[in-house]
Amino acid sequence: MPSIDVVCIGNAIVDIIAKCDDKFLEDNNIIKGAMNLIDSERAELLYERMGPAIETSGGSACNTAAGVAGFGAKTALFAKISDDELGKIFTHDIRAIGTHFESTPLAGDPPTARSMVFVTPDAERSMNTYLGACVEIGPEDIDEKIVADSKVTYFEGYLWDPPRAKDAIQLAAKIAHENGRIVAGSLSDSFCVDRYRSEFLELLRNGTVDMIFANEDEAKSLYQTDSFDEAIKQLGQDCKLATVTRGSKGSVVVSGGELIEVAIDKVDNIVDTSGAGDLYAAGFLYGYTQGKDLKSCAQLGNFVAGKIIQQLGPRLQVSVAKLAKEAGLIS
Amino acid sequence: MPSIDVVCIGNAIVDIIAKCDDKFLEDNNIIKGAMNLIDSERAELLYERMGPAIETSGGSACNTAAGVAGFGAKTALFAKISDDELGKIFTHDIRAIGTHFESTPLAGDPPTARSMVFVTPDAERSMNTYLGACVEIGPEDIDEKIVADSKVTYFEGYLWDPPRAKDAIQLAAKIAHENGRIVAGSLSDSFCVDRYRSEFLELLRNGTVDMIFANEDEAKSLYQTDSFDEAIKQLGQDCKLATVTRGSKGSVVVSGGELIEVAIDKVDNIVDTSGAGDLYAAGFLYGYTQGKDLKSCAQLGNFVAGKIIQQLGPRLQVSVAKLAKEAGLIS
Repeated sequence: MPSIDVVCIGNAIVDIIAKCDDKFLEDNNIIKGAMNLIDSERAELLYERMGPAIETSGGSACNTAAGVAGFGAKTALFAKISDDELGKIFTHDIRAIGTHFESTPLAGDPPTARSMVFVTPDAERSMNTYLGACVEIGPEDIDEKIVADSKVTYFEGYLWDPPRAKDAIQLAAKIAHENGRIVAGSLSDSFCVDRYRSEFLELLRNGTVDMIFANEDEAKSLYQTDSFDEAIKQLGQDCKLATVTRGSKGSVVVSGGELIEVAIDKVDNIVDTSGAGDLYAAGFLYGYTQGKDLKSCAQLGNFVAGKIIQQLGPRLQVSVAKLAKEAGLIS
Repeated sequence: MPSIDVVCIGNAIVDIIAKCDDKFLEDNNIIKGAMNLIDSERAELLYERMGPAIETSGGSACNTAAGVAGFGAKTALFAKISDDELGKIFTHDIRAIGTHFESTPLAGDPPTARSMVFVTPDAERSMNTYLGACVEIGPEDIDEKIVADSKVTYFEGYLWDPPRAKDAIQLAAKIAHENGRIVAGSLSDSFCVDRYRSEFLELLRNGTVDMIFANEDEAKSLYQTDSFDEAIKQLGQDCKLATVTRGSKGSVVVSGGELIEVAIDKVDNIVDTSGAGDLYAAGFLYGYTQGKDLKSCAQLGNFVAGKIIQQLGPRLQVSVAKLAKEAGLIS
């Protein structure tokens, strides 16, 4: 029996979050709802124009690791930081939630990655990410023993942006499969899917990825279709297990010809959608690694996603284990 | 007519905020509800023990400056930071809200101040502040032209902790009074009052301070009495204008023999009491500098204090100007 539930591989990012109106996004050519990649010069310009902000650790797969750890499960993380204050903050937060994180920080430049996250009045978040130290992640950052000892190895699709991260994932997937473990990934963002569609499809079709997490837009983008049903059908053919989140419509799980639709409780007070997908994956993976059935996994995913959108930022400020117990979802 | 409404002088601090239970405070000898001064060694130890956190600009008088600026009023701030990432975050946030802040950062050590703020389930915050760069503030940080051009010069009592900050305040008060302006201050914390009682009383009695902001505990501590009425009576004798906040009981204004009690709307969802006093002062000072009567000033103070305790951290994540307009408090 592996001793770690989920090991995640992702971009280590500190989020800098401020509210803004839609005009700000337009004026600054920020694609709404997307992860916009920016260079250090644009990062400085946008920060100058940004309103008062709060800082919190972020990063898609890092948020998932923190979410799984919040349930009390065993997690580890591979991600690249630099030896600076934001790197220290990132390291503190992920370790404080109980995730094993022993990445060697870069000495000096580039600095730890940051994403300026603008939240519009409709609670949608638009990210502007300067990848910084994340561009240096590679196969040497994978601790093979940890992968071999983890039930699930999970990575984010965003890792196709840094140059050598995909090599790290290929290595991790190989080790995981050699040890009979599961490899899971996320599609991250419909624009990210657009950048790497053929590679993502290949990952699914050649069996590198056993379990894929997507939202409706990403699934449609992957198969270049406007039809949700068509996207689901193709996902079912390409992948052993796929989950697709649909916002207020809940989520769908497709596995072995079976399609499970799971509704989500209505959330009245949506503050910030940051981390909704990441935390859905966290809830699902927690359930999955505890041996729960797929419907229960999706219910846990919906539950955590519903919690994260009621606060600012993608790391839960509440005890998800306590809340899930109170809701009768876990014992 | 002065062109600046309020200039604030305070410790420039970045807050690192996490939730904890009461046992954590006991185990770590943290005085609940207080501002605990710590050195860099203890800062490292506590950070290691702290749970996942979020970061936000803080500092008592800095929060007040940001609060007044949030109404659209003209503000300036004198406070000391270092040339590091937290200093950049602090500078960004205070400028982004519209406050004039041109402090020359220290080159290198000590670093920008930080306070580890632990929020217990009862929403009480217990602060652990490493003063860092703040210890270097002195009279040379006061821009005399700005003080002369400000309706109110406001400082925090915490400034008696760094060695030369009181000299800065004496200088600012002198310039303010020479130009016919108002000098206001806060008592900050009942333990702070305990450290500097005789000096604080002297500031009131010799007319250095025209307007004092306190909460019930601080007022009682100042006069070493258990009687709120006695504290109020003595404050009325020692000071031209005093406000005392009383949590859910609202606030009291004492001025020229008059006592005005102003109730506060019940707040159901108290998340974190950080910044309640700072933002009360902000609302009050905004009203005061706009020429409102004392009752209206206190209502504005209560209103903003009621908003800040519904979120994590001491800087408003909502537009206070918009909310106060909707509530009919300002036009």
